[in-house]
Amino acid sequence: MTTQKLVAQIRKKKSFLCIGLDVDLEKIPSHLLKEEDPIFSFNKAIIDATHQLCVAYKPNTAFYEAYGIKGWTSLEKTIQYLNKNYPEIFTIADAKRGDIGNTSAMYAKAFFEDLAFDAVTVAPYMGKDSVEPFLAFKNKHTIMLALTSNAGAFDFQTKKIDEKELYKQVLETSKKWENSENLMYVVGATKAAYFREVRKIVPNSFLLVPGIGAQGGSLQEVCKYGLSENVGLLINSSRGIIYASKDENFTDAAAVKAKELQNQMEEILTK
Amino acid sequence: MTTQKLVAQIRKKKSFLCIGLDVDLEKIPSHLLKEEDPIFSFNKAIIDATHQLCVAYKPNTAFYEAYGIKGWTSLEKTIQYLNKNYPEIFTIADAKRGDIGNTSAMYAKAFFEDLAFDAVTVAPYMGKDSVEPFLAFKNKHTIMLALTSNAGAFDFQTKKIDEKELYKQVLETSKKWENSENLMYVVGATKAAYFREVRKIVPNSFLLVPGIGAQGGSLQEVCKYGLSENVGLLINSSRGIIYASKDENFTDAAAVKAKELQNQMEEILTK
Repeated sequence: MTTQKLVAQIRKKKSFLCIGLDVDLEKIPSHLLKEEDPIFSFNKAIIDATHQLCVAYKPNTAFYEAYGIKGWTSLEKTIQYLNKNYPEIFTIADAKRGDIGNTSAMYAKAFFEDLAFDAVTVAPYMGKDSVEPFLAFKNKHTIMLALTSNAGAFDFQTKKIDEKELYKQVLETSKKWENSENLMYVVGATKAAYFREVRKIVPNSFLLVPGIGAQGGSLQEVCKYGLSENVGLLINSSRGIIYASKDENFTDAAAVKAKELQNQMEEILTK
Repeated sequence: MTTQKLVAQIRKKKSFLCIGLDVDLEKIPSHLLKEEDPIFSFNKAIIDATHQLCVAYKPNTAFYEAYGIKGWTSLEKTIQYLNKNYPEIFTIADAKRGDIGNTSAMYAKAFFEDLAFDAVTVAPYMGKDSVEPFLAFKNKHTIMLALTSNAGAFDFQTKKIDEKELYKQVLETSKKWENSENLMYVVGATKAAYFREVRKIVPNSFLLVPGIGAQGGSLQEVCKYGLSENVGLLINSSRGIIYASKDENFTDAAAVKAKELQNQMEEILTK
């Protein structure tokens, strides 16, 4: 999917919400456990109930790998269901991959070609040649970790290299890489004040923002500093939406929670 | 597996060789493509031919994910075959994972419990709470990227924070984490002179060393600076061994290449 198409969807739906499909069998409604593939059944129901309120879905691969081959089957079915029924949706494999060049190329093939995701998250520690194999895919998006939403972000990401924090070095350095127009960045909502700094370096790039809700970040704060001319934000919520209820009516509860966020986004976009 | 048991195996076999099972269908002998599961057939043949010459095997998960569910099936069969037939072998999932706490816990479960690997590689960018969920597993080993073997290692890893390179900060900081005795580190052979610096910070930790052979690193140089009292090194070779021949006799060719490295290691250990 092109960035233009993503922006058009955001304008049309008045939403820049991404829903995280981090599915844990211990947290989904118990009546689904009788189904042949409970994880896919859960995802399908959540997607059908919320797809008009969001522009993106983001399964975190860890939750699927934890169930081995069954989990990978659920992941494949989920992305196939999305691509077939809702082709306007932007799909993100939250995989945080990164390896030496020939190996990153294998990961890129897995997520962009075989599974046909629009985007994949990657880690920056191994530098340029670990990320460029992802960037080589046209109309695919590589979302690199810059400043994450967890406490450990302060261990290295905010430490200063030549008077400039590591996350800023990561942002600046990556702009010089080949096909860097295919980069987006992860910036956690729990560090809203940093968005001003981030926007000085990447004024127009899309930012994927975890940490709203369960992790405590504020949507208003993030938008205050993070919004760009083409919106430039994808705000992720996972647990707050998909686990809104454990009852039979879980899809209604999820839609209510997604609608709450979409309403706030509509207000921000139209004011 | 305990570290003591690993060291005992190294002493017994006079080898600290790890063989990387990075299996690409385009590079394996063509007669195997007729088999039901060519990747597993290839791995099984390589393992049977080389297990007395090495102490560890390291499948890189990218090569399996690239084949989707079929690939994950091959990976499962490979680790099950190793654990059943060669329980003395140290097994490493080269996955370079790392995410926020509850997500890293899912990855740890996937690799340590479900697949029952002895070790998994992780990335340090997200800090303490992204790695500690792995460290919580007793007698399991978390191998963190410190200084990698690729060119991109110079993008961030060798940049200075407070007069000290990032990879040194990673080593030092990680020593303070809970259960840090379960940490090992990735240090690339292509940067042999750095091993002296690494050993000043982690004198006894095991180091997993990629980059010998195809990537140009020297075994002698690495050992000169990297050997510790309990050996403390696992030298990985992937392509140089497993793709030594594409003929029917590929296992003999792989064993010859593994034996060459084991001979050099025996000389180093016994002099």
